[in-house]
Order: sequence, then structure tokens, then C-alpha cells
Amino acid sequence: MQFHLNGFRPGDPGVADDDAALSPVTPMRELPASVDVLIVGSGPTGLTVAAQLSALDGLSVCLVEQKPGPLQVGQADGIACRTMEMFEAFGFADRVLKESYWVNETVFWRPDPEHPRHIRRSDRIQDVEDGLSEMPHVILNQARVHDFFLDLMRRSSNPVLPDYRRHLTGLDIPAGDGPVVATIERLGSDGEPDGVTETVRARFVVGCDGARSAVRGFMGLGLHGDAANHAWGVMDVLAVTDFPDIRFKAVVHSANEGNLLVIPREGGYMFRLYIELDALAVDERVASRNITVDRLIGDARRIFTPYSLDVKEVAWWSVYEIGQRMTERYDDLPSDAPAERTPRVFIAGDACHTHSPKAGQGMNVSMRDGFNLGWKLGAVLRGQSPPAILRTYSTERWAVARQLIDFDRELAKMFSAPPKTSADDTEGVDPAEFQRYFQQHGRFTAGTETRYSPSMIVGGDDHQALAAGFPIGKRFHSAPVVRLADGRPIELGHVADADGRWRLYLFADAGRPDHPDSQLAALCEFLATDDRSPVRRATPADADVDHVIDVRGVVRQHWHDLTLGSLPALLRPTKGRYGLVDQEKVFCPTPGRDIFERRGVSSDGAVVVVRPDQHVAHVLPLQRPDELAAFFANFLLTAS
Amino acid sequence: MQFHLNGFRPGDPGVADDDAALSPVTPMRELPASVDVLIVGSGPTGLTVAAQLSALDGLSVCLVEQKPGPLQVGQADGIACRTMEMFEAFGFADRVLKESYWVNETVFWRPDPEHPRHIRRSDRIQDVEDGLSEMPHVILNQARVHDFFLDLMRRSSNPVLPDYRRHLTGLDIPAGDGPVVATIERLGSDGEPDGVTETVRARFVVGCDGARSAVRGFMGLGLHGDAANHAWGVMDVLAVTDFPDIRFKAVVHSANEGNLLVIPREGGYMFRLYIELDALAVDERVASRNITVDRLIGDARRIFTPYSLDVKEVAWWSVYEIGQRMTERYDDLPSDAPAERTPRVFIAGDACHTHSPKAGQGMNVSMRDGFNLGWKLGAVLRGQSPPAILRTYSTERWAVARQLIDFDRELAKMFSAPPKTSADDTEGVDPAEFQRYFQQHGRFTAGTETRYSPSMIVGGDDHQALAAGFPIGKRFHSAPVVRLADGRPIELGHVADADGRWRLYLFADAGRPDHPDSQLAALCEFLATDDRSPVRRATPADADVDHVIDVRGVVRQHWHDLTLGSLPALLRPTKGRYGLVDQEKVFCPTPGRDIFERRGVSSDGAVVVVRPDQHVAHVLPLQRPDELAAFFANFLLTAS
Repeated sequence: MQFHLNGFRPGDPGVADDDAALSPVTPMRELPASVDVLIVGSGPTGLTVAAQLSALDGLSVCLVEQKPGPLQVGQADGIACRTMEMFEAFGFADRVLKESYWVNETVFWRPDPEHPRHIRRSDRIQDVEDGLSEMPHVILNQARVHDFFLDLMRRSSNPVLPDYRRHLTGLDIPAGDGPVVATIERLGSDGEPDGVTETVRARFVVGCDGARSAVRGFMGLGLHGDAANHAWGVMDVLAVTDFPDIRFKAVVHSANEGNLLVIPREGGYMFRLYIELDALAVDERVASRNITVDRLIGDARRIFTPYSLDVKEVAWWSVYEIGQRMTERYDDLPSDAPAERTPRVFIAGDACHTHSPKAGQGMNVSMRDGFNLGWKLGAVLRGQSPPAILRTYSTERWAVARQLIDFDRELAKMFSAPPKTSADDTEGVDPAEFQRYFQQHGRFTAGTETRYSPSMIVGGDDHQALAAGFPIGKRFHSAPVVRLADGRPIELGHVADADGRWRLYLFADAGRPDHPDSQLAALCEFLATDDRSPVRRATPADADVDHVIDVRGVVRQHWHDLTLGSLPALLRPTKGRYGLVDQEKVFCPTPGRDIFERRGVSSDGAVVVVRPDQHVAHVLPLQRPDELAAFFANFLLTAS
Repeated sequence: MQFHLNGFRPGDPGVADDDAALSPVTPMRELPASVDVLIVGSGPTGLTVAAQLSALDGLSVCLVEQKPGPLQVGQADGIACRTMEMFEAFGFADRVLKESYWVNETVFWRPDPEHPRHIRRSDRIQDVEDGLSEMPHVILNQARVHDFFLDLMRRSSNPVLPDYRRHLTGLDIPAGDGPVVATIERLGSDGEPDGVTETVRARFVVGCDGARSAVRGFMGLGLHGDAANHAWGVMDVLAVTDFPDIRFKAVVHSANEGNLLVIPREGGYMFRLYIELDALAVDERVASRNITVDRLIGDARRIFTPYSLDVKEVAWWSVYEIGQRMTERYDDLPSDAPAERTPRVFIAGDACHTHSPKAGQGMNVSMRDGFNLGWKLGAVLRGQSPPAILRTYSTERWAVARQLIDFDRELAKMFSAPPKTSADDTEGVDPAEFQRYFQQHGRFTAGTETRYSPSMIVGGDDHQALAAGFPIGKRFHSAPVVRLADGRPIELGHVADADGRWRLYLFADAGRPDHPDSQLAALCEFLATDDRSPVRRATPADADVDHVIDVRGVVRQHWHDLTLGSLPALLRPTKGRYGLVDQEKVFCPTPGRDIFERRGVSSDGAVVVVRPDQHVAHVLPLQRPDELAAFFANFLLTAS
């Protein structure tokens, strides 16, 4: 798709009419007096939490936002592979794939040794290593990501619409069991309070209100870290240039004029430049420098020497300061809270961590904060899990932010240092070294390296060897398979919708699954009939058998050599008012791309337990139903 | 995507709210007094014509439909590979891919030789041969195809909305040059005329009003062919069965109970059964037989013996009669019309050809009728082509119908015959023979075999050898390539949007395209600067250089070994109000899947000329700019 040729235009590029292309603003309406979850902030983090909850029937959610309406321009644009996998679970990855720029390679430019005032391409690398994810790394206006979430939330059977022009002015977190009480002021179209204040009582509150989070303030938490900030300039431009790599992601180090990043953008014409400005003094604000867009353009032109840059339109620009900082925790529990206390107020996204834009991590890590929290809130509110699982949110995501801050500090230091001029130069950084660091951390920036530590919802690694390619704690790494019932090639990971369900992938042992000696069949029998079975325990009496735990089988046979009807009943369950057979539970290896080989699954088979946020919770033998039952008993309650 | 578990529901399965899921009905409004094109009938054929015209700025179009609103259920469901390629050009193939059932294999069942009253699987074949198309053969409710077209038409800068409850009662085709005058009656909500009659004057009229086409009647044409019809029953059901191939397309021949086709449907639960009923006597109507849905279910159950069929819900069913018939021509020109006469009234789709549903051809061939006609009307109305090109519509599409009718008659005969009982049995047909016929004609049913004969818009085959894999007259067969400017892997065929433009694919010769001895560069120079250049002649003075003819280059180098800036200016044109460079015109071979090898392109290179409907119009040497110019001069006028 090509668009923005004659100027940037916000909204859906597939709709010709300007107004129809924009996400609608919810009309001003009264806030509910009482809700299950109050979300403060409708950025990508708040939208991820809201979208997850809107996918779960029966929950009441209120999403408030200070801005007057949906975002239309600017802010983040990088979408990592792991985030695309999450979008696939939410059902809109295809729309992002269609509209976005795909980062296929990253190129590196540094001073030409023969003409040091000129830049020269030094290298290029594949941006995402082969096999890391079935999804590409892409770039798309953050506003469009919002649009897709908003669209999803509107289409849901439990719609959630943001209430704009609402400002949180108070949050009362009672010591006892009562609801959290939020005081929210309406803002007029001028952004000033219009005199109306509303009160919302919420079982849980999630602050997704950015680096200056009000929720964080009411929790008594702060952002801690570097004293001084770095100033950055960013601009989305339509421009003519003879820089040859303008449609590649490019890291450009000049000798004396500074450094910049080129991020090509969706539509084929626009691109973004991130330009590093000066380090600020402690407590200095970038606003005091009065930096103009012309200054940014001038900087970029000098860095690009000898290439030209003729900017025709600046679609959006900003100058901002950033330091590596993070909060001490993500929820309202004091660090010495007794084990029985459970949190009621959470923060997520920029409210918890701030860092440089260089590796495109901000929006991605933030949305994954939201994905981690959303299903847990849903499970507790629907009575499926004890509130104790909510404690894992802060633990799991704080550790991710810690890694991110460390990574970013190192990357920022290397990015900002002047190019090394000689072997004796101890100040400078060899751009080749920067490139190596960047490349080594490709898996980290893709988001696929995140690994949650053992907890009540992440098992130990005693049986990891049964499925070495599905590391416990990391996201389930999809692989191609063929569906038994209809011979359709699919990605196994794509069966996992963001629907709050746990998944059990039963990888078959060497026995035929339609024979009595099959371990797979024996485990299915246990799961379907034994009183200790987590499937039986967790499933409400009137619900389909896969309502809480979705069991999938992966067999070793070709789909021509097995029929679904011969397999254990649990793998062809009857569902719904008519008792129709769900024919989509069993998969076969793709010829030539055997999932058992690719993911190192043992000939004894394996059970891979996957959380609602797609992370592998456990790997267990088919032959240990008691261990499986005990693991689920940690966090799944018996349905009434 | 899984849906319809608890019953069929029309509309978008991704929207929870019933009403919001349905395409809106255009409110009753006055018809325009005068239009460029009046389309009668909003089935798939009429929608294809309308969608094509709505993609072309500045045309006025009126689309009238007798029904009270958009289709919601039933009718056709098969979408051939070639049709998916067309949907890709219209921009909604991704939506169809996501929602549809994919036909991966076809299975054949026949009487078990040991228990002839039982059926047994005899064979299975891959449904689409490898490499035939980048698109799969899929199945989706016709109503959803309508929805996608309607959505596209609403989103256009030149929106076209159907006017429902309008019945064509008269069509005056004057002998001279004046407009065709249509008389149209409004229908009330009861389907009866409400007394209001409107008159629409149209430069062109297209009758897409089905087998009993009123437009065809006013043209004095008929459907001709078999005297007797065959009766068919069809039903979309939600059912429980132990037939093992219920999620495969299945052709089932029983010994004595008749034959049926199983077509699995979107959503994972529903399937369609086509059941062949009796041959009818001449002039007999199937309605006279009073066939009930219970009769169809009973027939199906007997054919499926020994498998069970427990129907829980019939989402839609119909009994209808069909014979192999076609019209004598597709436009209003008498066969002896002098060369200077050009047609003004056309028919397309079922108005032109009727046949059995067995090979899933009806909707597909009809939409491709519409695709063939739409761009030609647009080119004439926008002054780009002389009206004479409209004569090619009837010629090209009549020949396709002729082939289809012959194919269908043969297939129907073989399908309906009882299975051969012995080698001496001259009545019966060996199901293996049926299977062979079916398989041999896979390319035909995929729609990729259609080949238009030489005409003013299809060249002769003197230079076909330069690009043997792009047969002149057939659709441009896509292949994977990598875009030079950003290293993105894409399908070359997908650069062709349904935007009414001609395309020139310039396949490079062995010389480097950035060197002076390159034939590719020489041709670009001619096209960009020579007064005889069709690009220069056809492009209006104030339009972008690719407004009428979109030139694309395919080079032989790896994208690391060439920069866009070094290539001829025509392949990196500046466009729009800012003069931005279009960076998406040049492509490189995909490593290991070289398009030059795969499509047999000569080391001398080749020019492949592609029509707006994706058919290859000509193959010429890079070195023959005059021949290229002469070919375009046949049908492209000089822009004023």
C-alpha cells in the first residue's frame, strides 16, 4: 500500500473520506459508579489491558483518558516480532502486516575513513534472525495500533469505549477490602476542568498514564535512575533525498555532526528521523533550549553529508528528554506485605519505565506489560484464579524493565559516544562494536527473549529436556503444522487467541494415538474423566470442555494416515447447543519442517502448558498426570 | 477463525453485535437522471463492475437491485485461485483468506467393492497443483464477498452505493448516438411496485441481473442450449456425522442412492451438501416436484451409508434446476455490425451463461466477466481508449463461457452417470475416470487457463519465447521477488491494483541496468523522453508519469548490489505535489527462487505488457520500442 504521497493524513489509509477514516470519539457520558476494573490512560498499554478484558464476557471496565480523543499522529512506531505475535492473538496482525513498513535489514553508516566528514555505509545486517518468529519486525504509526485495538473493543460482545477528557484527581486505596475509589474530573474542550467531578469505585485500578503517572503518584511510587536526561529530536517527514538507504532502517554516525536513526515508515514515502541532541544538566528541561524543527532539519542535513535532504513536509515532530529510570514496583503492595495480601492498584508501561527510543522498545514492552496483567485480572474477576496470581505481575514485569533499562543504558552510551578515532581513543566507541552489540541483542529487542522466573504460574525445568525448543517462561515459539481434519497448513501458535484461556499442547509419544498403548491417549483419558483432572476441575458444569483449558494434540502421523474420529474424545470435543464436533484440535507435522525436530520434542512426547499470554508455563511428561494436576492446582480454582 | 457453533449467523463473524455485523441498506433516494454507467443487479458480477468503476475517479455510476438489501445467506461459495488474485487487486484478499475455508485436498468416495451399498474413500488429490497460483482455492459465503465489495465501494473517493428495491421495466436503446434510457420502478417493502417510476439516461448499461435477465430480454437475446434441466438440491447445515472427510471437499458416488458433493464451509462447523436430483423433462420446473429439505436430508443420509448424518440446523437450502445454456453474445451489437459501431449495452454473469454448480465456476466466471468489462468502460469514459475496445468484451468472455459450458456438460454427464459395474457396462462411468477428468481440469477450474485471443488489446506471439512463463492472453502469473529499495519480499503480481492502469514489467537484459550498455536503460530512456513513447502520449500533462501506464523494472542483481538512485529516472519517478520519489518500482530475484528462471525470461530481457485486468497483453523485446509504441497506439489515445 502506498499513501501520504501528497501529505500525511491521519486515519485509515484505505478510506478516502478524511472524517470517516478516523476512530470515533466516544460522546461525553456519565462514568459508571462501580466497575471491576478502572484503567487510567488509553495509550497502547491501557488499550492492551482494555482489549484483553473486553474479550472476556461479563466484566465491567471503565477506561478514562485525559486527551480529547484518539491519537492521530506521532509517538511510537516500532512493532517488534513478539508484539506482532500478540497482535495475532488479538486478531489484527493481518491489518498491521498489510499497512506497515517491514524492517527487513538494518544498515550502518559511519564516517568514511578517506573523507571523515562524509558518511559511508559500513555494513548491513538482517534485522531479525531466521526462525526467530513467524512474524516480521514492522513499523507503523502508533495511532493505527490504537485504532485496531479500539475497533476490536467496539466489535466485542463486551464493548469497552474510552471516556475522553477525564482527569484523575484522587485515588483512595483503603487499607481493608473495600473498593478503590477514584475521583475523576471532566475536562472541557479547552482541556481545563469544567467543574464536574465523578467518583468511580473499582475493584482494581490500572494506571497506564505515562511517565508522569498520576496513579503512580497516588501509590507513593516514583521513577528512579539517572539524574540527568538526554534530549532527543524526532520528526516524521516527507522529503527528497539521495541518501541511498532511505527505505532501510539506518543507524548513522557522523564524525562531528552527531548521530541519527532513520526509520522508514508505512505508505512508501514518509520516514522518521531520531536525532540525538545534547545531554541535559541535572534538572534541566529540554523546553528551555527552545529547539525548533529547523534546528532538527539542520542537524539531520549535516549528519547526512554528502547526501542531500530536502524536507517538504513535517508530519509531526517533537523534542523531548529521556533518562533511564524505573519504578520500584508495579503494584500497591509494600515490599514487606504478608503473603495473604494481594494488590489492587497497578501501573504499567511508561508509568513504570522510561528509556531512550533507540531500540524501539517503549511501546512494545508497555503493551506486553498490559498483556501480562490483563488475563490475570480477568481470571481473578471471573473466579477462575485466586487473587494471589496478581502478585506475579509486578515480579515478572519489573524484571523485564530492569533488563531493558540496563540494555538501553549500554546502547545509549555506545550510540552517543563519538566514533573512536584511534586505537588509543578511550572516549570513542568503534561503530563496529555498536553494531555487534545491536546485533547480539536482536532477540532481546524482538521481545522473544523475555523469560519469566519460576512462580505459582511458571514451573521448574525438571522436564525441560522433553521439549527443549519451548523454554519454560518464554513465549510459546510457533512452528508450522498441518491441521489433521482438513489438511490446512497453519502456524501452531496462531491457535492461541487472546481469550484468557490456558492451553495444553499434547505432543504425542511414539505410540499411535489411536492405539491403546499411546501415552497421549492415556493422558487424554485422565484429563477427560479423572476427578483430579485440571480440565474437569476448572470447567464450569454448563460450559464447553475447552472453556478454561484448551487442549490441543500434535501427532506424529501424516494427516492421510490418521482420522480424527479414531482419536481420544478430548481431542474432538462436542460443543455448543448442538453438540457439534470441534475439528480443529489436532495437528500433524508439516512435511519437511517437522515440529518435533524443530522444537526438540522427545520421542516420549511432552505436555507444553501455555498461559493465556502465550508464555510457556511448564513442560511435563505425558506420563505424569498428577504433576500436571498439582501444577494447575496452584492457580486454577475448582469451578462451582 | 471458528464461528457458527451455536447456529448460523449472517454478517461479519468478527463483530459480536448482530445488527452491526450486517452491511447497511442504502436508504431509498432518487436515482440520478443521467449517469455514465447504469448497472442492473448487485450480485457478484454487478459488484465487480461497480467496484472497478468506483476505483476510477470522476465516473458517475448507478447500481440498481431488485432485492430489498444486501444478500445475507446462501448462493455460491467457491472462490477459485484466479478470483483470489483478482480480490488481491481489489485489496480484500487478506480478509477472504482470514475468514474462509481453504480447499487443500479433494477426496473421492465410491462404492466399496466388497460392500457396494457402503461408500469407501478411493483417493485423494491435492486440490490445486503446486505453483499454479500464489493464492489458495477457498470457500466463503457469497454474502461475505458482497460485503467486501460493498465496503470497498463505500470507502472509495468515488463511492458507489446500491439502490435496492428497483426493478427495471424498460430499456430504450436508440439507434443513434444518444444515451440508453432505462425505466425503473420502485418496489415497496412487500416487493410489489409502489407506483413511482424513474428514468435514468446512461451512456452504458450493464445487465448483471441473472439467468432471467431483464436487460438481456430488452436486447432481444436469449439463453440457448440443452432443452432439459437437471434438478439440484443444496443445503448449508450444522450437523454431527462420523463421515471422516467432512472437513475435506468430497465427491461421493454411491452405488444406487445418488451422488453428492461435500463443501466444508468457513468457521469450522458448517458444511454444504450439493445433491443431484433427477433430470427434469423438457419445460418441467423443479418447483412442481415439491421437494422438501427433509427429502434432501434423507437422500444425503442414504448416500453417506454406512456413515451417520444428524442435521441440527439447516442454515439455508434450495432446490433449483439448471441446464447448460448460454447467450449468443454479450452486447447489443448485431453480429453483422459494421466495424465503426460500438456497443452500449452489455450483459455479464448468469445473464450470459448457466451451468451446474459442480465445479464451483458460476460466481467466479461471472466476477471475471465483470473485471474484464469494468476497466474497458472506465478507459472509454475517461477518454483513455477508443470505444472500439468495448467490442473485445463480448468476444473474450463469450469464448470463456463456451469452454465452460463444454467442460460442465462433460463433467455433469460423468458425475451423474451410475458407477460402472463392469468392463462391459457402457452406461456407467468409472469414478476413477471422473476423478482423472476432474484433476486434468484443475487449472481450468482454478481460472488460470483462461487465454484471450489476439485482438487490438492482445498481441501476437512472435516474441513469446522471451518470457515463456507469461503466456500472452493469460493472466500475469505472479512470482516472488524482493523490492530493491527496502529488501522486502513480495509477490510481483500484487503490485497490480485494480486501478484501471496498464503495466509494463521490464525484465532486465544481462547488462547492468545502471550501465550505458543496458537495453533496459535504453528502453526507459525511450519511454521517458521519446515523442512516440506510449507513456508520454497517454499521460495527461498534469498527472504523475504512472497515471495511465505503470512501469516496473525487474533487475537481475541482488538488492545489495544495486542502488535505486543509479537506475533510469523512469524507475524512480518523482510524483505528487512534493515531487517525492516513488521507491517501489524495481524488484530483484528472490534468492533461490529466481523469477527469471521460474518464468523463463530470456537473457535478452523482455517487456511484459499487462492489462488492467491482470491479463498479459503482449511480450516484446526490450529492443523494439517502436513495436511497443505501435501496440499501445491500437487502444490508448493521446492525452490532451
